[in-house]
This record gives sequence, structure tokens and C-alpha cells, in this order.
Amino acid sequence: MNAEIITIGDELLRGEIVDSNKARIAERLLLHDLDCRHQVSVLDDPADMREVFLRAVERSDFVLVSGGLGPTRDDLTTEVLAETFGRKLELHADSLAAIEAFFARVGREMAEVNRKQAFFPTGADVLPNPIGTAPGFALEVDRGARRAWLFVMPGVPRELDRMMDEQVLPRIAATLARSGPRRVVRAALLRTFGMGESTLEASLVDLARDGEVELGFRTTFPDNVLRPVARAGTAAEADARIARAVEAIRERLGPIVYGTGSDTMESVVGGLLRERGLTIATAESCTGGLIAERITDVPGSSAYFLGGIVSYSNAAKAELLGVSQASLEREGAVSEPVVRAMAEGARARFGCDLAVATSGISGPDGGTAEKPVGLVWIALAAGDRTGRAGTHADSFVFQVDRSRHRALTAQVALDWIRRHLLGFELAGPTLMRRLGGGSTPGGGSGGR
Amino acid sequence: MNAEIITIGDELLRGEIVDSNKARIAERLLLHDLDCRHQVSVLDDPADMREVFLRAVERSDFVLVSGGLGPTRDDLTTEVLAETFGRKLELHADSLAAIEAFFARVGREMAEVNRKQAFFPTGADVLPNPIGTAPGFALEVDRGARRAWLFVMPGVPRELDRMMDEQVLPRIAATLARSGPRRVVRAALLRTFGMGESTLEASLVDLARDGEVELGFRTTFPDNVLRPVARAGTAAEADARIARAVEAIRERLGPIVYGTGSDTMESVVGGLLRERGLTIATAESCTGGLIAERITDVPGSSAYFLGGIVSYSNAAKAELLGVSQASLEREGAVSEPVVRAMAEGARARFGCDLAVATSGISGPDGGTAEKPVGLVWIALAAGDRTGRAGTHADSFVFQVDRSRHRALTAQVALDWIRRHLLGFELAGPTLMRRLGGGSTPGGGSGGR
Repeated sequence: MNAEIITIGDELLRGEIVDSNKARIAERLLLHDLDCRHQVSVLDDPADMREVFLRAVERSDFVLVSGGLGPTRDDLTTEVLAETFGRKLELHADSLAAIEAFFARVGREMAEVNRKQAFFPTGADVLPNPIGTAPGFALEVDRGARRAWLFVMPGVPRELDRMMDEQVLPRIAATLARSGPRRVVRAALLRTFGMGESTLEASLVDLARDGEVELGFRTTFPDNVLRPVARAGTAAEADARIARAVEAIRERLGPIVYGTGSDTMESVVGGLLRERGLTIATAESCTGGLIAERITDVPGSSAYFLGGIVSYSNAAKAELLGVSQASLEREGAVSEPVVRAMAEGARARFGCDLAVATSGISGPDGGTAEKPVGLVWIALAAGDRTGRAGTHADSFVFQVDRSRHRALTAQVALDWIRRHLLGFELAGPTLMRRLGGGSTPGGGSGGR
Repeated sequence: MNAEIITIGDELLRGEIVDSNKARIAERLLLHDLDCRHQVSVLDDPADMREVFLRAVERSDFVLVSGGLGPTRDDLTTEVLAETFGRKLELHADSLAAIEAFFARVGREMAEVNRKQAFFPTGADVLPNPIGTAPGFALEVDRGARRAWLFVMPGVPRELDRMMDEQVLPRIAATLARSGPRRVVRAALLRTFGMGESTLEASLVDLARDGEVELGFRTTFPDNVLRPVARAGTAAEADARIARAVEAIRERLGPIVYGTGSDTMESVVGGLLRERGLTIATAESCTGGLIAERITDVPGSSAYFLGGIVSYSNAAKAELLGVSQASLEREGAVSEPVVRAMAEGARARFGCDLAVATSGISGPDGGTAEKPVGLVWIALAAGDRTGRAGTHADSFVFQVDRSRHRALTAQVALDWIRRHLLGFELAGPTLMRRLGGGSTPGGGSGGR
């Protein structure tokens, strides 16, 4: 059996928005071992819609449609679909009541046009939408000797996600189960930082080839994400394959794997700090508040994050962090003594266990022959309670654009906190070529 | 004439990446008055690829293909396309030399598989790729009485963008020009903040209907973006229509329109500060460094941004910003006296013209009956050199999730700086319902 995804809307065809719905639907189908062979987008145009609906049920068993369920004249999906498959439109009283209740709940008056959203093709199975006005529906249609199942969902991503998870996937699973025994699919997601994609692929090439799992690679700067997928006759076997693959990857990559699933570097760091009852502060120059912003993006971070200083000017470095004027004048703001003094100053100032500091030239201007654009110094100052007291500093040259320079610097700083707490070496990213051309692990004294 | 976009790759169909290439291509076609009627994605599968290529040249004049030009066995686009249209593959010597030069430049050895990227279907017009190894190509094919043009490009977004702009669009424009007089298309992009999408649409409904321009709306939280598009017989007329539409929108929306094109709130604020020779600092609690991060995301921001303090703990608010312990204890950290003292403390501390401060409960936890999750206080302290000295503070309840709460709070704070410098009222967002449910412009004393 196979699946096809159709998304509908002029805004997609005009390139006004990037359509993430196809990926949202497809990644969910994968876990039901359903091959998605086609993804199609069309205008809000009855003739074009009709053509793609007909072609889809001809070649695909499951057709997942999103968009065009709104109340306006441009929203034609239900109407065109009913017409294409020779169905009438019928009022669904429960849906009308639900839409009325939705408007009452948010304190808005329901417009007359919203009534339209309670009409569905005869024979449709209505799919409730608890967080929006547009219910979806499922429709089974004949196509000669076989049948196809259409699932029609709203285009709003969070409404789509919920309807997929709560309504559509259970129906697909039940249909698949009726068609006979299925392979079970399991997937894991491992987040890595610090190794380029090609090295990562090269070091896992045998795992990818042994047939136990399929191994997907994806770069979401500055991380690389690994996705082993296992298909087996039983859930136990699929789970076991995934577990073996994850263990093998972790063993091979060591500290390069920093998390799983929806982990972020800042959530992993937060978990470690919370677990050990340690506190942290930041002193940022080139990252301009990005590290603090990421740490505080984690709910509950006030338990371990005391605060940060964005010392963009030299005066701020001197006055707020106690960096000596002599260092600033003699060595410049982007230098080892300054970044060490920043980290140590922040730790003293906030009275915390750990502090990270950054000072660099993110560009596009401001470089010199001696200190090129891309140069950055990073420091981590740690107290006794962390197990290893002392300050570590190192420099890198990241030849990437300003925003990637900042993102990469912040990721290294956060990764150092993690590595420090787990007892790993405070390495920088190796072979960043794929990430943007040649990091020089230069000059760092690492005088821990 | 119309266009169709085909993107190729298993990773798209498995939902491992969100495909932005279709939007990148489509938005460029729009400016050549080319209707893009279909977007299709297929697996790296010869039979499926063949089917979509044949269907595309049947129904579309221009077919834009991306992906599958890499060196690996999965990259089949060129081969399948040649086969589909009965062409042989020929080595293109210049491309081979360019690929060899590319590897020499980045200091890597060229693998034997990369030779494959220098082969093209007979009769193809090779499109150079100055920033990657995969050249593209254009191919004209017969389809009965008419002809279709295929343009095949790499899947890497920045390589695709450049090849579209430098190679593909000029060829499309020349082909269109040969087919007779064309309408000229012009578009503008206006960025707005502070008015909900439905109110925006309602207040511009007559402009959208007068036929001078088409008016597109798009929400990119927390902004709404307006995109007038004009089609006319001459460039002068299209330009004039756009100018009239932009003027009318600006007149009607006033300070709600904050920028055009690729402006961001922080780049607009930065431009104003730089122009007037003013300096700024930040004092952030709930936004955790986000405002500083956004200000410093703008190249050259060190000219006006002195620094910031992320005072997450009460101790930091007291020690670094001079907020009185009495206020903190009596009123709590999320209160008018505290946020005012934070802004004024930051201004004094950094010796700058302007300072913004935030203190709120971004959630998901930490609310009380009196101070619910979503409550935030924002303050702007301004000195004489800004034209209007004094401190303004106001509170809002933004009923959105943590990350949107922080984003919205930061946007209001930045918008207040802009509004202050332009002499507008320091309003908060009106009717944030569409942005996430009911802002209460509550309690603010606004004692400027």
C-alpha cells in the first residue's frame, strides 16, 4: 500500500509560504511503513484540484489532503472533492454545534460563512478539530476493484498535527491491520554536534550497510541528526534493532551524540545543571545574548540560570565584568586574557558554579590580518562544586556568515558546559568544512 | 504560458526535510508573470520520475526541476531525464574542468564518482554552478506542435538560488519575450506589527478590490506581511501602481507598517539609532537575552548597542541594576516599579540614551491568580537626547506559548524604541487574538 500527499492553496504556488505540511504528514506515515510516493500541490482551482484528486486515487491507496477548508470563497476543497466523487454536501449538526461553541469560547461572533465548514460529502466520516473551526473528514471511494481512502485536514500546522495524530493515523493503522500482517516500523533520532556530515557518514558506513536499520542523515546547522529506522515482523524485533543501532552509534561517536528526540543542547545542559544543583551565568560579546536566550528558552531554567551580561562595549567589559583596561588595550577585546577575565568575572559577579564567555569577530566587517573575521575566543570558568575547577579557553576561526558564526559559537559554549559536566574533553568542532569551511583549532592554550 | 516545479529526493518523501526549494522557485516565477500551476515531489525512482517528467511537459511550458544532481548512485535526475526524452549522455569538458577546479579550490581530492556530474543529455545547455560541484542544464523538448523547456538545478538551496537568478530566469525572460509582449510584474513587501491579520484585511479590503494590485497577506509571527503585486503593460505603469498601493497602505496603517523588503524590527531600530547618534542598552528578565541577541544580529550594531543585563534572578536585578529589595519583596519581580527600575538602572549603568526592560511570566508555569501566565511588564527609559525624556511602562497578557511570549515581548520592546524615536504613541499590539488570544492592555500607567 502507498500514500500520496496533496496540499492546496494559491499561497503555496506563489511561493509566499514554505509548505511544511507535506513533511509533517510524510514523517508520520513513515512510522506506519507506508511509502509516500507522491507529493503534489495545486492552486485553489476546481479543474486542477479535480485532476489531482482523480490521479491520486488511481495510483495511491491513502490520499492525505491539507488546506482549503476555511470559510472563504477561495476554500473549495470539500466542495470540489464531493463533486469529483459524485457526492452531495450534507450539514453535520454536531460540527455546526462545535464551531458555534468554538466561537463562543474565544469570545467572537460566528460569521455566517463559517456555517459552510459544517458541510461534508455524503458518507464522509467527520474528523473533529478541537483547536480550530475547520473539522476534517475521511472518505472512502471506489476505484474499480479496489478502494482508496481520502483524509482531508486543515492547513494550519498545529491543527493538522493534532488531527493526524488523533484521528487519521489510528484510522490508517486500523485499515492496514485489516489488510493483513504488517511490518512494524520503529525510528530513533540522535542529535550530534562537532563532527562534519561526511565524516559522520564515513564512520557509520558499515552500520548503514548491515541491513538492520536504514540510517538517515540530516544537517540542521550546526547539528547533524541521525535517524535509524528499523522494519521488522514484530515490535520486539524492531525495538531491538533500534536499540542495537543506537548503542553502536553512541559507542562509536561518544560525546558527539548529545541528545535524542526533541532534545536541544540547551535542554540537555539544563537537565545536567538541574540534576547536580549547579548554577550558571553568561558573559557574551559576539554572541550578543544568544547563549542566555537559549538557556532561558528552556522552561524552569530559573532554577540554574542566574543571569548574564552582554558586554558589547569595552566599557561594559571593564565595568560590569572587571576585565582590566590593560588587557583590553594591550591584547584587544578578542583575546585569550579578555575572554578568560570575562568568564571569571561573570562567575564572581553572579556567584555561580559555571560561567561561559565569548568574544569574537562575527563579521561581515571588523577583521584584521592578525585577527580575521571569523575568529572567536570562548572560555568556561568552573568552580569546585563542578568537580573540576579552573578556566579553559580556546580560539577558533569559523568561516561562516554572521548569524552562523554566532550560532556555532553559542553551540560550542553550551557544548563545553555539557562536556565539562560529563567529564569529556572540551573539544571544539572538528572538520567544520561542511559547516562552512575550515575551522582552525588554533592558538588555544587550554590551560585548565 | 505556465510553469511547473518538480523536486526530487527520498528525503522529501520521507518528511526528513521541509522542502523550501519549491517556494524559492515559485516566488521568482511570480515576478515574471508566470503562473505556477503544479508542484510535484517524487522519490529517486526512475519510473516515478519518468511519469512526472512526461506529465509535466504535457501540461506546462516551463518545468523547473531541482535535486538528484549529486554524485551518488541515488542521484538519477540527469540519467532518467535523458532516457525519458530519448537523449544520450555526453561529457561536457568545461564542466569537468570546473568540477576539478572546484575540488582544487577547497583543497579536497575529487572522487571518481564526481565525473558523473559532467555528463549531460545531448542538446542540453549547461548551466554553470560557481559555488558547488553540480552544474545544471536546460533542455528544450518537443511535445507535439509546441515545445517545453526543462531547467534542471541542484537541490542545495543557495546553489539553486544563484542558478535561478543568474542562469534560469534570464533564459525564461528571453523565451517569454520572443513569444510576444508581456505584462510587467512588480511586487513590494511591507512588514507590519501590532494589528491582527483579520483587522488588517478588513481595513485594506477596498485596496485589495480596486484591481490596481493584488494584495497578499502572510503571517510570520509576530508580524503580518503585506505583498502588493501589480501587473501592467509597461514597467512604468506597474511601478506606479505599486507606489500608489504602498502609499495608500502606509497612509491607512501609519506606524503599524515598520519596514519593507528584508527589513527586520531590529534593523529598522538600528538604522534610527545610528542616524541620530544615540545609544541603547537592555535589561531583560523573561526575554532572557532575546532583545540583545536581536539588536546585535544587525551588522555594525556595536555603534549604538552598549550592552545588556539578563537579570534572571532577583539578586541580579538588585545588584546589577539597582532595583530596590523593597520593591522586589513588596511588588514582586513582575511589576511596574521593578520593570521601571530595571530600565532606569540599565540606562544609568551603561550611560546610554535609551534602555528597555522586560519582566514577565512566559510560562508554562509560575502564574498565580493575580499574576497569570502570560503577564508581562515592559518599560522604556529615555534621556533628553532622544527628544522625549522619561520612562514609559505598560503591561500585557499575551496568551501564547513560552517561545511566542518571549518573541512577542521582544517585538513590543523593540517597537517601542522605534515609536519613541519617530514620535508615535507607545502602543502595544491591538487585538492579538489572531496572534494567540486576547491581549489585555491592562493596568499600564504610561506615566511618561
